[in-house]
Amino acid sequence: MEKMIPFNKPFLAGKELEYIQDSVVSGKISGDGLYTKKCHNFFSDVYLFKKALLTTSCTDALEMAAILIDIKPGDEVIMPSYTFVSTANAFVLRGAVIKFVDSKKEHPGMDESLIETLITPKTKAIVPVHYAGVACDMDAIMDLAKKYDLYVIEDAAQAIDSFYTGKDGLKRRLGSIGHLAAFSFHETKNIISGEGGLLVVNDEKFIARSEIIREKGTNRSSFFRGEVDKYGWVDIGSSFLPSDIIAAFLFAQLENMKLIQDKRKAIWAFYWEQLKGLNAQIPFIPDYATNNAHMFYLVLEDVDVRYNFINYLKDRGVHSVFHYQSLHKSAYYSTNYSGENLVYSDKYTDALVRLPLHPSISLEERTLITQVIKDFFNTFS
Amino acid sequence: MEKMIPFNKPFLAGKELEYIQDSVVSGKISGDGLYTKKCHNFFSDVYLFKKALLTTSCTDALEMAAILIDIKPGDEVIMPSYTFVSTANAFVLRGAVIKFVDSKKEHPGMDESLIETLITPKTKAIVPVHYAGVACDMDAIMDLAKKYDLYVIEDAAQAIDSFYTGKDGLKRRLGSIGHLAAFSFHETKNIISGEGGLLVVNDEKFIARSEIIREKGTNRSSFFRGEVDKYGWVDIGSSFLPSDIIAAFLFAQLENMKLIQDKRKAIWAFYWEQLKGLNAQIPFIPDYATNNAHMFYLVLEDVDVRYNFINYLKDRGVHSVFHYQSLHKSAYYSTNYSGENLVYSDKYTDALVRLPLHPSISLEERTLITQVIKDFFNTFS
Repeated sequence: MEKMIPFNKPFLAGKELEYIQDSVVSGKISGDGLYTKKCHNFFSDVYLFKKALLTTSCTDALEMAAILIDIKPGDEVIMPSYTFVSTANAFVLRGAVIKFVDSKKEHPGMDESLIETLITPKTKAIVPVHYAGVACDMDAIMDLAKKYDLYVIEDAAQAIDSFYTGKDGLKRRLGSIGHLAAFSFHETKNIISGEGGLLVVNDEKFIARSEIIREKGTNRSSFFRGEVDKYGWVDIGSSFLPSDIIAAFLFAQLENMKLIQDKRKAIWAFYWEQLKGLNAQIPFIPDYATNNAHMFYLVLEDVDVRYNFINYLKDRGVHSVFHYQSLHKSAYYSTNYSGENLVYSDKYTDALVRLPLHPSISLEERTLITQVIKDFFNTFS
Repeated sequence: MEKMIPFNKPFLAGKELEYIQDSVVSGKISGDGLYTKKCHNFFSDVYLFKKALLTTSCTDALEMAAILIDIKPGDEVIMPSYTFVSTANAFVLRGAVIKFVDSKKEHPGMDESLIETLITPKTKAIVPVHYAGVACDMDAIMDLAKKYDLYVIEDAAQAIDSFYTGKDGLKRRLGSIGHLAAFSFHETKNIISGEGGLLVVNDEKFIARSEIIREKGTNRSSFFRGEVDKYGWVDIGSSFLPSDIIAAFLFAQLENMKLIQDKRKAIWAFYWEQLKGLNAQIPFIPDYATNNAHMFYLVLEDVDVRYNFINYLKDRGVHSVFHYQSLHKSAYYSTNYSGENLVYSDKYTDALVRLPLHPSISLEERTLITQVIKDFFNTFS
């Protein structure tokens, strides 16, 4: 059989290995070395984030957020059920109770209109997940947060280089809107470092403590700035900072964001053009959102059709994959869940399938992929 | 002024960059890729660890251990006060109360004879720290664990390639003796990946759950072995696995352990030979322990002498550094501490200083270092 077109393939933007070598020569490859600073500067100078801190994963950035907002046992956190386990686990590790929201009919992101009914006096935070890099309606969410005095933590794992335009007409970068936000640089994301993440601190009151929690609960950052004469244990915390080797790899990617994004967007646009006429739900970009070409998916009839679809493509050299399992039905959490049926979350659990999307898919490959998909629909519809 | 001899300098063993490139070409640079497997195989085939799992840091390996032994709020954990904050924080994050033990007069490791008085019905674990890679008396500790039904988690952060010989005459690798153990590959350790760690599972009952906790509380490892047909959320957990880029770097180091260790041991032996006649405490290796040349330190008269010593060396081009602050006196924990004075822990806090020790220190440099130290003692003693 011919070689499979993989669902994902890490893309080298150019200088990754050169920068890693340079990091080693600099004499410091642990956290917060030369390239970590370059990445931090990128996010403060180009992205204009108030404070951005590299982490070992998006999971870890979410865990930092849970510690920063001081989650205590019994606190409630509202989030979609159709998301990665880490969105929930980060808060469960601190004792939170999760209240799950259904997805929208037209998009796997959570239905903002269902959030308010879940708010109780115990609610501490809302965690919108920008699924596929497509913005949640942040005005609706921030209004609720203001009304009920809640924190908003954007799970922007998939949302680099994506935006939201609110009622005021301003176009805001995803990750810059909530009190805190978390990005992922996992190899399946647009900008990668294998594993890796970023915490964004938009509410200034969290900045000082974010540095402490990230440095194992010590005031080491203050020490290196000369603000204290020795550093010690001042808070809970963990080792959230990545090796500078990871930052060096990441910086080479960040420098080439436009190159990477142009390639991804061309592939996404090709899929859209070729597949929009099919009898299947495809990505929906609301007027308030942008498309960062993180993902192209189809929502099929049901789990059986998806099973056949994935195998049909596999037999023809194309690797397509399903995505999340509704968290409210998970082995770990289902016994705690007493809420509504979440029909759209379950629908996407059963029927959503993602197509290969990485910068090195050739024109021949994308043509093959869309042709195979059209053949499937012609054969089985 | 001439260039400083740094306290630490990352050492490239040879194939680090080649392996990183190879990892990228393999098509998978997230966790548990090609080089993670090679590292795991090294630890199972060469080190004969029952189960070894790379983590993003030693801190994270300790956090996995705390979750595995199911630490609950109020559980007590016994450890030295003279250790890194992560030894304690990993357990405090799960709600543990820490009972601190003093160091020994002749060595910064904890005084095993003081442990039993701290054991209560709430005690769940003992965490011996093999300071400077020198073994704690593990027979004494394992006997107590057996007597009181406690877990032992070896903090082997500094203890790669080091051994303990027990009453039975068998020479055992550090990290293979407790129920669980944690190693560090931080750039200041013998074997490095910038940031990085390893959890060792010696008690088989923890193996299955260790894989789940490390994979964000999912049964993903079972899924990839074909044991379940989809994977989902089954437990708490985090993203404890490092990028394969880190594993690729690490594997190049592990392959060259002998080269690295020979270089370090030669420098350590030189220090020993040159400095053993000084009027200062130098490393002590008990009969039951080996020396892995992780660290060469001096214990000076007091904090003022150490201050002068560090500056004297700095003015002459040598970077020496102090080490831990007693955790029982930290800003974070001192108000919780009602135990004894820990005089040796405080002594090492004030008076221990570490000399540069990394494979690339030349003969000229080590000669300079020891000469400057002798000059200091001749001038001020």
